[in-house]
Amino acid sequence: MSDAEADRHREKMEKRKAVQDAEVAEKTIEKGLLIVNTGPGKGKTTAGLGLVLRALGHGWRVGVVQFIKGAWDTGEKHALKAFGDRIEWHTLGEGFTWETQDKARDIAAAEQAWAKAEELMADPTIRLVLLDELNIALRYDYLPIDAVVAAFRARRSDLHVIVTGRNAKPALVEAADLVTEMGSVKHHFSAGVKAQEGIEF
Amino acid sequence: MSDAEADRHREKMEKRKAVQDAEVAEKTIEKGLLIVNTGPGKGKTTAGLGLVLRALGHGWRVGVVQFIKGAWDTGEKHALKAFGDRIEWHTLGEGFTWETQDKARDIAAAEQAWAKAEELMADPTIRLVLLDELNIALRYDYLPIDAVVAAFRARRSDLHVIVTGRNAKPALVEAADLVTEMGSVKHHFSAGVKAQEGIEF
Repeated sequence: MSDAEADRHREKMEKRKAVQDAEVAEKTIEKGLLIVNTGPGKGKTTAGLGLVLRALGHGWRVGVVQFIKGAWDTGEKHALKAFGDRIEWHTLGEGFTWETQDKARDIAAAEQAWAKAEELMADPTIRLVLLDELNIALRYDYLPIDAVVAAFRARRSDLHVIVTGRNAKPALVEAADLVTEMGSVKHHFSAGVKAQEGIEF
Repeated sequence: MSDAEADRHREKMEKRKAVQDAEVAEKTIEKGLLIVNTGPGKGKTTAGLGLVLRALGHGWRVGVVQFIKGAWDTGEKHALKAFGDRIEWHTLGEGFTWETQDKARDIAAAEQAWAKAEELMADPTIRLVLLDELNIALRYDYLPIDAVVAAFRARRSDLHVIVTGRNAKPALVEAADLVTEMGSVKHHFSAGVKAQEGIEF
């Protein structure tokens, strides 16, 4: 790299930094965020778990409610035991609807899980709540979307809430501060690769 | 809900479960995956961290290399100290290119980070390696894409590698088993909300 090239790079980056700094300075509001991770791709739950980890690193207490139990005992639940009572983990949902095959039982489980979610959101020692696969319960109308969105809007101002699951309802997206759509570009299941320990569970 | 409705639900779910089970049975290959989290949305790094947590929950050793240091000390790094020597964390990259403003220094830092990545991938006690923001170093051609992809293709068969960062190069996508594009549907920065402790860092 010539000196002239190095100089051009530095000048370009100086300008870029000025733009970046100005953008950061414009943003002044602090608030608890309603975060939605949706879409058909991977990473909705794991991105939520990454935020749980980040929050724990800041010394916060964190609550987790799993609305769908899933077919296996998950690695993350085991790992988070390292943080003792700094994390409250509740698996209250049943398995996927095609596993239980019982709609009344699915609805009862969703209602129980939502009651726990409301309890965690009301706990002043908790700064972040992850409601894993809540979108599934909303999608099948196991819980009333209006009541759920109203509870989110009424949350205290420093509480972060993360909702995961495919097919987020429009009313939830409307109420959210941050919505990410995970898109599947390429998936190993298509190549006959099975669900892998440590990756899928 | 009437009995007839409950029955219809059960029948529908029985059929769905049969389809689901058949799909699962078709997938028989076990292998370490090359996973890429890319796209402009949030969740690329945090989804990687969620997999790190999952892996730790399975008792694995894990390696992390941060190719971009970022502007702050991150919560997750602190939280992962709870796992002692089960995790090897290396922050070898410099800040963003517009922070360093020095291309030669950026290249040297990327090369050093990649050398550490190769060392971790060669360590037989490590089952998962997270190469955070490697895509940034590749995008600016601070590292040769061909050599990086060749190293991934030559990895041992049970090693999972996660690469994060925007603008994944086509050759990396081609080599990967699982590629997710995080799309930004809605972002709180647009509403003047600043980067939040516990969420962005």
